[in-house]
Amino acid sequence: MDVRYINPFLSGTVEVLSTMAHVQLIPGKPFIKSGQTAMGDVTGLVGLTGEVRGSLSVTFVFRVIQATMKGMLGDEITEIDNTVRDAVGELTNMISGTARRYLAEEGLSLRAGIPTVVSGKGHVIQHITNSPILAIPFQSQFGRVLVEVSIEG
Amino acid sequence: MDVRYINPFLSGTVEVLSTMAHVQLIPGKPFIKSGQTAMGDVTGLVGLTGEVRGSLSVTFVFRVIQATMKGMLGDEITEIDNTVRDAVGELTNMISGTARRYLAEEGLSLRAGIPTVVSGKGHVIQHITNSPILAIPFQSQFGRVLVEVSIEG
Repeated sequence: MDVRYINPFLSGTVEVLSTMAHVQLIPGKPFIKSGQTAMGDVTGLVGLTGEVRGSLSVTFVFRVIQATMKGMLGDEITEIDNTVRDAVGELTNMISGTARRYLAEEGLSLRAGIPTVVSGKGHVIQHITNSPILAIPFQSQFGRVLVEVSIEG
Repeated sequence: MDVRYINPFLSGTVEVLSTMAHVQLIPGKPFIKSGQTAMGDVTGLVGLTGEVRGSLSVTFVFRVIQATMKGMLGDEITEIDNTVRDAVGELTNMISGTARRYLAEEGLSLRAGIPTVVSGKGHVIQHITNSPILAIPFQSQFGRVLVEVSIEG
C-alpha cells in the first residue's frame, strides 16, 4: 500500500470526530497487518471502488462511542441501538468522504458504497484481500478507535 | 427498490452455495424492511457502486456455515476463525459477482469493493441508507441464511 494513502484516512478520522463530536483523537503509529482482526463494540464499514478496490472500517469501543454520541447529539447512551448505529454510519460516510477528498488530491479517485454498521460485544472484523491492510490506531481520553484500510494495487 | 433487483441476488446466493458447498437453500418470500436488523454469527459485507450506491450482506447462523465449510473444504469446524471468515468473504465475492452479472443483463452495471467479514455471536448488521432494504430469507436443512441488499435510486 502506498504510504501516501495513510494521511488522508488519519486526518479524515481526526477531523470528523473533532468537528462532529468534539472528541479529540491522538493518532498512534500506523502499521501494516495481515491476518489479525480488529475487535470492538461497534464498527462502520464501507466498500471503495475506482481505479482500485478497497474497504474501510472504523471500530469503536463502547466508551468512545458513548462520548461521541454525547458530543454529537447530547444523548447519554447506555447501549448500542439503531440511533447509535445510524450515527456510526454517518461518521463512517464523513470519514470516507473526507479521506477520499484528500486521496483525490494525491491523484487517487475512489467512490464509496452504502455503509453498513455492525454491533455486538467484541465482534471481529476481517478484510478479505491478499493486499496488506493498513491499521491506524487512535487514542482518546475515553479509549481507542481503530481505523483499518485495505486498498488493492 | 426495483423488483428486478431481487432475482439476481436470490439466484446468485442459491447458485453459489449449491455449487461451492453443496448446500441447498430454499428461498423464502423477500420483503422490504426498514429499521430492523439482521442477526447472525458470521456475515459477509460488500459495498457496491456504479450508477447507484449499494450494499450487500450475507448472514449465516453457525450451523449453516459449519455445513458450508464441510461442503467447501471438508473441514469440521467448531468455531469461527480466520479460515472461516476468509471462506465467507470468498462466498460473498462470488454471490456479489454472480448477482452483478445478472443485474448487468437487466441494464444495471455495478462494481464491488473489497468484502469484509464480521463474526461475533448474535452480532447485528444495519445498512445506513434512507432507501428501502431488501431482505431475502433462505432456509436450509442446517438453518437460515439472510441476504440483505440496499440499492439507492
